[in-house]
Amino acid sequence: MELFNYFRSSASFRVRIALALKGLDYRYTSVHLPRREHLNESYAAVSASRLVPTLREDDGHLLTQSLAIIEYLEETHPDPALMPQDARGRARVRALAYDIACEIHPLNNLRVLRYLTADLGLGEDDKNRWYRHWVETGLAVVERQLADHPSTGLFCHGDTPTLADITLVPQIFNARRFECRLDHVPTVMRIFQQCMGLPAFSQSQPSACPDAE
Amino acid sequence: MELFNYFRSSASFRVRIALALKGLDYRYTSVHLPRREHLNESYAAVSASRLVPTLREDDGHLLTQSLAIIEYLEETHPDPALMPQDARGRARVRALAYDIACEIHPLNNLRVLRYLTADLGLGEDDKNRWYRHWVETGLAVVERQLADHPSTGLFCHGDTPTLADITLVPQIFNARRFECRLDHVPTVMRIFQQCMGLPAFSQSQPSACPDAE
Repeated sequence: MELFNYFRSSASFRVRIALALKGLDYRYTSVHLPRREHLNESYAAVSASRLVPTLREDDGHLLTQSLAIIEYLEETHPDPALMPQDARGRARVRALAYDIACEIHPLNNLRVLRYLTADLGLGEDDKNRWYRHWVETGLAVVERQLADHPSTGLFCHGDTPTLADITLVPQIFNARRFECRLDHVPTVMRIFQQCMGLPAFSQSQPSACPDAE
Repeated sequence: MELFNYFRSSASFRVRIALALKGLDYRYTSVHLPRREHLNESYAAVSASRLVPTLREDDGHLLTQSLAIIEYLEETHPDPALMPQDARGRARVRALAYDIACEIHPLNNLRVLRYLTADLGLGEDDKNRWYRHWVETGLAVVERQLADHPSTGLFCHGDTPTLADITLVPQIFNARRFECRLDHVPTVMRIFQQCMGLPAFSQSQPSACPDAE
């Protein structure tokens, strides 16, 4: 398999963690977003959306959208499981993942920040305020779903990592990079530390990537 | 079942379509977002995130996040199927759904538009430009994934509606409401018309809801 990705992209980071948890080898191909390599014609043949990550299977089949890729890996390589065995557990894990992937992350990715400054003329201070607002309020929502919930364990759901943890950890890296408040989300941060104790998470982090700067 | 939702909310509309396609009855409970009823204490007991929709099952179990709810309905009420039978098909359908639910819709929901105007001081023109930019560029990505793809049929994937169509249709309603360009996405619009020919879609549309204004 070949993963087209970028060290700092959260969505890429999610897929790297899932591949590592599943013990799947892959070729790391860097697509440098700030240098706009995702807009090159060569990448257009790989990804109609021009987004990272894309996973290319050995027979050439292409998969896009990080959460769809991870669900696919779960279906095709079920061991170790990254989803609970019961439907309600799966619904909770997916909802937690979407609370981040649909409510926080889309507001803070590079193309959105660029539009705010380059197209709408906002300054750096307003851009940072925007970033922190969605991260801090969004993570507060995640904290409320986790704290005191009977299914929360060492990880977001039970005592093994799931799609929810895989989505959470990259968001915390982003939060730290933009110096967001995190003292209001103690359960989130406890789980973050738990995840980072696992090689699959720590070895997939941006600074450990071949294209890290 | 009881669905806490709002007639104009896209995420609510998605769940209404899925429930209708599955032939599942539910009680419609309106949560009026512009009147900020989602921030009432009574709704806090239902939803930690204060977002709509929330689906309450007959035993009181609560489900949040529209796509997680639909995946749960698919698992618990598999007939008729809203997901393809093969893993690659499911990955494609999920990726299409996320191309909308993670790349377009989060940038255009009510709380985000409010933040742009109330907190960042943007005017109506800039707000509308922002809205149209993400809808028009985002739908162009969806169009590229659909046009000429061998798996695209009468619907986004094959000849029966899936999660991808369920996510697409509410986005087109939003696009029209904000007078976005749609002439550049002919495959998207062909599929939209196909969907709207089905009672499950047309009877779930905002104007058909009890709380429609």
